[in-house]
Amino acid sequence: MESHEKSARLLYDALATGDRAVLDTILDPAFTGEATEGLPFGLGGSHDGAEAMIRDFWWAVGRHYRVRAEPAEFLALADGGLLVLGRYAGTAREGGRELDAAFAHVLTFTDDGRIASLRQYTDSARWAGATRSVPAGRRELRVVRYDVTDGVATVELDRPEAGNAIDPTMVEDLDEATFRAAHDPSVRAVLILGTGRNLSVGGDLAYFTRHADDIPARLRGIIDRYHVTLDRLATLEAPVVCAVHGALAGGGLGLAHVSDIVIAADDSKWAVGYGAIGLASDGANTWYLPRLVGMRRAQEMFLLNRMLTGPEALAAGLVTEVVPAADLAARARELATTLAAGPTQAFGHMKRLLLASQDATLSDQLAEETRRMTASGATDDAREGITAFVERRRPDFRGR
Amino acid sequence: MESHEKSARLLYDALATGDRAVLDTILDPAFTGEATEGLPFGLGGSHDGAEAMIRDFWWAVGRHYRVRAEPAEFLALADGGLLVLGRYAGTAREGGRELDAAFAHVLTFTDDGRIASLRQYTDSARWAGATRSVPAGRRELRVVRYDVTDGVATVELDRPEAGNAIDPTMVEDLDEATFRAAHDPSVRAVLILGTGRNLSVGGDLAYFTRHADDIPARLRGIIDRYHVTLDRLATLEAPVVCAVHGALAGGGLGLAHVSDIVIAADDSKWAVGYGAIGLASDGANTWYLPRLVGMRRAQEMFLLNRMLTGPEALAAGLVTEVVPAADLAARARELATTLAAGPTQAFGHMKRLLLASQDATLSDQLAEETRRMTASGATDDAREGITAFVERRRPDFRGR
Amino acid sequence: MESHEKSARLLYDALATGDRAVLDTILDPAFTGEATEGLPFGLGGSHDGAEAMIRDFWWAVGRHYRVRAEPAEFLALADGGLLVLGRYAGTAREGGRELDAAFAHVLTFTDDGRIASLRQYTDSARWAGATRSVPAGRRELRVVRYDVTDGVATVELDRPEAGNAIDPTMVEDLDEATFRAAHDPSVRAVLILGTGRNLSVGGDLAYFTRHADDIPARLRGIIDRYHVTLDRLATLEAPVVCAVHGALAGGGLGLAHVSDIVIAADDSKWAVGYGAIGLASDGANTWYLPRLVGMRRAQEMFLLNRMLTGPEALAAGLVTEVVPAADLAARARELATTLAAGPTQAFGHMKRLLLASQDATLSDQLAEETRRMTASGATDDAREGITAFVERRRPDFRGR
Repeated sequence: MESHEKSARLLYDALATGDRAVLDTILDPAFTGEATEGLPFGLGGSHDGAEAMIRDFWWAVGRHYRVRAEPAEFLALADGGLLVLGRYAGTAREGGRELDAAFAHVLTFTDDGRIASLRQYTDSARWAGATRSVPAGRRELRVVRYDVTDGVATVELDRPEAGNAIDPTMVEDLDEATFRAAHDPSVRAVLILGTGRNLSVGGDLAYFTRHADDIPARLRGIIDRYHVTLDRLATLEAPVVCAVHGALAGGGLGLAHVSDIVIAADDSKWAVGYGAIGLASDGANTWYLPRLVGMRRAQEMFLLNRMLTGPEALAAGLVTEVVPAADLAARARELATTLAAGPTQAFGHMKRLLLASQDATLSDQLAEETRRMTASGATDDAREGITAFVERRRPDFRGR
Repeated sequence: MESHEKSARLLYDALATGDRAVLDTILDPAFTGEATEGLPFGLGGSHDGAEAMIRDFWWAVGRHYRVRAEPAEFLALADGGLLVLGRYAGTAREGGRELDAAFAHVLTFTDDGRIASLRQYTDSARWAGATRSVPAGRRELRVVRYDVTDGVATVELDRPEAGNAIDPTMVEDLDEATFRAAHDPSVRAVLILGTGRNLSVGGDLAYFTRHADDIPARLRGIIDRYHVTLDRLATLEAPVVCAVHGALAGGGLGLAHVSDIVIAADDSKWAVGYGAIGLASDGANTWYLPRLVGMRRAQEMFLLNRMLTGPEALAAGLVTEVVPAADLAARARELATTLAAGPTQAFGHMKRLLLASQDATLSDQLAEETRRMTASGATDDAREGITAFVERRRPDFRGR
Repeated sequence: MESHEKSARLLYDALATGDRAVLDTILDPAFTGEATEGLPFGLGGSHDGAEAMIRDFWWAVGRHYRVRAEPAEFLALADGGLLVLGRYAGTAREGGRELDAAFAHVLTFTDDGRIASLRQYTDSARWAGATRSVPAGRRELRVVRYDVTDGVATVELDRPEAGNAIDPTMVEDLDEATFRAAHDPSVRAVLILGTGRNLSVGGDLAYFTRHADDIPARLRGIIDRYHVTLDRLATLEAPVVCAVHGALAGGGLGLAHVSDIVIAADDSKWAVGYGAIGLASDGANTWYLPRLVGMRRAQEMFLLNRMLTGPEALAAGLVTEVVPAADLAARARELATTLAAGPTQAFGHMKRLLLASQDATLSDQLAEETRRMTASGATDDAREGITAFVERRRPDFRGR
């Protein structure tokens, strides 16, 4: 019966590569397929004949999903058939959300060894969920908590059982939460923090070991989306405060890097960690670390896995302020609230000037300062600020 | 009589925007104007008829000045006329010097409310002064003192009653003084310092409150010229030493930033201060601060108005050396004198290499070093330096 | 007889500039030349007639070498002839190796003062050596020792009597040794160190004083080649460890700058030193110093010749770690050996990301991180690293 397993493996390979010629060889022309009824896009139901199955099911799936059926176990059945267990892994073409659904396929074979039928069992809700094109800003959050109070948008990583490790769900939720903050004009400061023992241990290695044969693509899928979030925070008009407790490692460091004010618990621990697992870098670590801690310290962190404590991170330049762990959340919120009462547009100009300065010549930067200084001078907040200064009173900034 | 004030306001608005149609509506055709006699370019004297006043006075003024009449007070006169008090603010088109002159306008009106006459009282010496096109390097200094001794050009800010605040006169004088230093081949070092309690408190906020309706244009006018000075100092061949005492804030920080050696009094105070008044940044602060003190400290200074003491500025990287306030001037002059006896051309190459390095790739910089090292090797000073080194004696550098 | 010396000087000048007209004037038409027999390219032997000497010897020499005969002494001979002592200095056109050979020329003159003959004595082995086009990677090392053990390539500067000063031989050997390391796939880390009291005092000033009339060209010749070595080390996939003892000065600093991990003896001394000899900078000092120690400290080192001790260099950011001098070699080798057991490809990606980051925008760097992270995720070492991490065991990296 091993030849049946071989045929089945050929089937999955041919589907992965879209090899029509192989399919024509291994499928009985009278092949029948039964797909899970609830599949979206009318994909579910019966398909009679190899031709119909290929055209109306497999090729149709490919039009709606970038997905691969990854068989894990091939179990011979008493009647000569084969039970194949595995997972569908990929993304919906529309919306780009992840599809990760278990499957069981029951295959039968003709006497001459061709595949006669396939019955598919899979969770159609997962397939539908991946396609739901909820607009950004209105998607449901699962591992991030989001709240806006007094002009402060709080983005709280909430996957404590996994150390707030970054997996596809986490990057989706960070994207969603920061999208909301960026498009809400009432938001005048952002506060990033996390539940559990660590702010974030970085990429979810358990996730990658579950997909050990597909690590590069899985990495790319997560990083692409995560980097959008980091870039959004770095260029947000509203100041961003990050409260770091426990471990902050790998790509997770990016959340602190792109923030404007970083408050760290005295017992926090900072490390890149890529060298230990044979990877390069993500999360903007190679952009920020040389700028924040200097090239020598960055090289030591990358090549020798040097870990920094909170006070070391402060001395090195990663951190604005270190406080006792018990005071962390309060201090970070206090600063975020202060910033939310500031001249938001001027803050936005400062942030963009500091960012642009990194690859600008002195002359270019002088011109850009003139432009943005003049623009800030036209705001209500500037008039209020200058007047209040001369009148020796506190300014009342409205962010306009 | 409020309608007379309305007509007057329309007049100033129409003049500001050059709205001929409005002028035709609000001026009596038999309008008579009397301009201050001493105005340059033959602008003074009487103009009969609205047409003549527009063509021979107002439009003619516009050909020689970029100027706006800014009314501040409208005082009703017993005879039904109006006294308007305000200032002319702008620059001469030739030479670009600032015009800032008070005016009193006496307006009379026809029965149907049109403006029948205008008598202008203003300081024609100010108008003439703004047009004097004294060539750069030969203009009179008012709030900066300049002196060259033993190859050291001293540029001393001297507006102590205003904390050496930066206003149009200060930027003009800094431009003039640094222009002289840059074009005097005997100058082999520059020393920047200031009189009074502070080196410079930054932009002159009192000036901006006087022009609260025109802040963006006033900012641009000052910054444009100030940035020319900063760029000139940053790229000057001769080394620049800055002695910092008291407060150095806002755009004033730029004077220290562009210097090569910065000596600070132990009780000096450093702050950007823009956030407190709702402005962005100028004076190259956003270019230098991330490079000098690191991104985290720069963000703290910008967003949280963090002030640094002299020792903190040293530790942060803003300053070369901190000395007791009493020793500041002597130590700074000692270093400037030492530098004025150095290999000036090699110093110039070093300065440009360090500046260019900021946005160069390693490969580009290696090529530029080769070019400039070879050029420096062709100087008399290099021959003298290498020979003196091998002969174990002090080199006698001439700056050639 | 002084007129003979004048003619001889004219000869050397005319040969240096290729001035055929002068040669025709000062050479007797019946001139005979005898070149050293062993000269390569058939240049040796007798040449009869000025025309033959010019065409078959001097012009022919010019086709194979960029060389100048530099006369140093003119000694009158009893028979009215002249003995000229000097050196040939230049490079072979093929291969570009340096030619530096002493010569003695015996000149005779006609009664009317023209040059009648020249007998040349020079070391033809030097001429041949300069042309030997041994391929890179296989040239003989003279002042650098090279060895590969356990994946660590050791590059040891070995010119202790001259403080490992950088002269043409040193740059050739550094080029050769680093070329070998770069092209040997078994090399997974490089260790740079030196014999004698100093790692390197920088450019060989004695060499430049020997060529005081030709300093720019000599500088260019050395720097061009040295910069190739520095660029190669900076972009090498394998990590580079530098062990710094004694003095490290001038261009020698570049060896530490381009390294990834720099271990310094506590009694080491760091200085650029260019200002003292009237030169600008080389060895990538102007690129690395502002990035490593900050602009203020870099300016102080360049303009005021500030010297740093080992601990100061550590505090400033030049150095990864300071150890007692006695422990230096062992500690540096320990780290190099550790790095040689690391994920070499991931290290290479990190190195290039850190280097590229210096002139990249945040957005560009995020994209480059995604690319290189994904590439590193496809290596055997990444699979091993992630698996070992989850299995809580030490990874066994192979550099693949």
